[in-house]
Amino acid sequence: MQTKIAVIGYGNIGKAVEQAVLAADDMQLAGIYHHNDNLDALDADVAALCTPTREVPAFAEKLLRKGISTVDSFDIHGQIFDLHKRLAPIAKEYKAVSVIAAGWDPGSDSVVRALLLALAPKGITYTNFGPGRSMGHTVAAKAIPGVKDALSMTIPLGTGIHRRMVYVELETSADFATVEKLLLQDDYFAHDETHVIPVPSIDALNNVAHGVHLTRSGVSGDTHNQRFEFDMEINNPALTGQVLVSCARAAVRMRAEQRHGAFTMIEIPPIYLLPGDEEQLIRSLV
Amino acid sequence: MQTKIAVIGYGNIGKAVEQAVLAADDMQLAGIYHHNDNLDALDADVAALCTPTREVPAFAEKLLRKGISTVDSFDIHGQIFDLHKRLAPIAKEYKAVSVIAAGWDPGSDSVVRALLLALAPKGITYTNFGPGRSMGHTVAAKAIPGVKDALSMTIPLGTGIHRRMVYVELETSADFATVEKLLLQDDYFAHDETHVIPVPSIDALNNVAHGVHLTRSGVSGDTHNQRFEFDMEINNPALTGQVLVSCARAAVRMRAEQRHGAFTMIEIPPIYLLPGDEEQLIRSLV
Repeated sequence: MQTKIAVIGYGNIGKAVEQAVLAADDMQLAGIYHHNDNLDALDADVAALCTPTREVPAFAEKLLRKGISTVDSFDIHGQIFDLHKRLAPIAKEYKAVSVIAAGWDPGSDSVVRALLLALAPKGITYTNFGPGRSMGHTVAAKAIPGVKDALSMTIPLGTGIHRRMVYVELETSADFATVEKLLLQDDYFAHDETHVIPVPSIDALNNVAHGVHLTRSGVSGDTHNQRFEFDMEINNPALTGQVLVSCARAAVRMRAEQRHGAFTMIEIPPIYLLPGDEEQLIRSLV
Repeated sequence: MQTKIAVIGYGNIGKAVEQAVLAADDMQLAGIYHHNDNLDALDADVAALCTPTREVPAFAEKLLRKGISTVDSFDIHGQIFDLHKRLAPIAKEYKAVSVIAAGWDPGSDSVVRALLLALAPKGITYTNFGPGRSMGHTVAAKAIPGVKDALSMTIPLGTGIHRRMVYVELETSADFATVEKLLLQDDYFAHDETHVIPVPSIDALNNVAHGVHLTRSGVSGDTHNQRFEFDMEINNPALTGQVLVSCARAAVRMRAEQRHGAFTMIEIPPIYLLPGDEEQLIRSLV
């Protein structure tokens, strides 16, 4: 029996979820909805919320109240626990499951951070992002007067410190020195090493590649200098879409076990993310 | 309230478990037992089984039947699912939890392999071990006539292929050429690139350092070339002991939720491995 997944929001992430569903034998598409569509007739086991992140909480509430489990990649780190608290009682009331913050960061990186903390409880974890586009910083750069289009690249400098390479395509009438000054004063950029570079076309630089270099040096028991690294170089929306589909599988599994509520990925057994039977998975992975 | 952990077996791993318990505010030692000791009076929430791996199944059964949860780092990959099947019904009957194969491989590497499979369902994962001592190969080398002591180091060559560097301390009467020939014919060594090196003292080479370089290149949805790497360079028994203690915490948590049975680490929510409250963990890790 296949899991029916509806896709809500059809931008980069929604399209990636569609591809991941089509590639999974245990999944079928239950419809693709643009985020202004009427959802009254929606019928699915799980809805993958691929709307702008700020619209996720309202969509999740609405669908959970219809008894449809949800997965989202809500990515405002400081508000994830609040979303958890908000959705958990609704999911429980309607006997559904909501997997939240399910992307790569937050998401799979969170699982790696939790695992490394368990392996070496004392120490420091650094998550270094990029090279890759920062959505938040790109939007902030686009908001500067005189900027027609922009791209803010995050460059990892180690120990969680990042450089911002901000490419700007200017309006014809704009003065680069003024744009640069305003941008460097913006709170998004004022605290990091930031370089502003005028270019004739942002479209020519477009690339959804991203990366992570996560490190931990810590202490296991009383033994210091335990060293761990996790690296990835990935297509950003493709990975996010895949994580959402893997987490939809976990949502179905947890619901079948009557474990209703809201869950981040660190609260889910990793095996629930995978298709196939327990014996084959344990024999091949453990 | 602290979790009471008994340590069964007091070799390298048992000592590392002791250190990890002493370093954890939420844990207390409930006794240290050598593996021939009488366990009738043992009273603990969890017993950490640090005996030779082949003795783990019998100890686990015995302790589960006393209603004591167990954690072990049983490491014969091909027999882990069989141990799972054997211990699960006993753990359920006595309302206890048995966390099995809980070390770094099998163990935390298994979690990474499961996670990477969820992130890129098609592709190949290679687990490269070392440089570090292989216990199984070291024992096999020691069994060769004329060998007084031995150390077999595993050297990673990439794509899961390994070189064996076998250091041998010979009996006075032994002939190196004969020892080398017998060793290279042994099934443990016949299939890998193996170098045999005579040394005056194995003790002088002793070092519990080990490492892993795990890679996956795979496909998320229909997007190829998604690349992941997990590396560690660690003190081997210290990490194994720490993983056992973190898994003891998970065993207590799962028992409190009436989820009795046997579990490998891929069947456990990563957050259960960690002390502290849910809100603080989600806010800091996700």
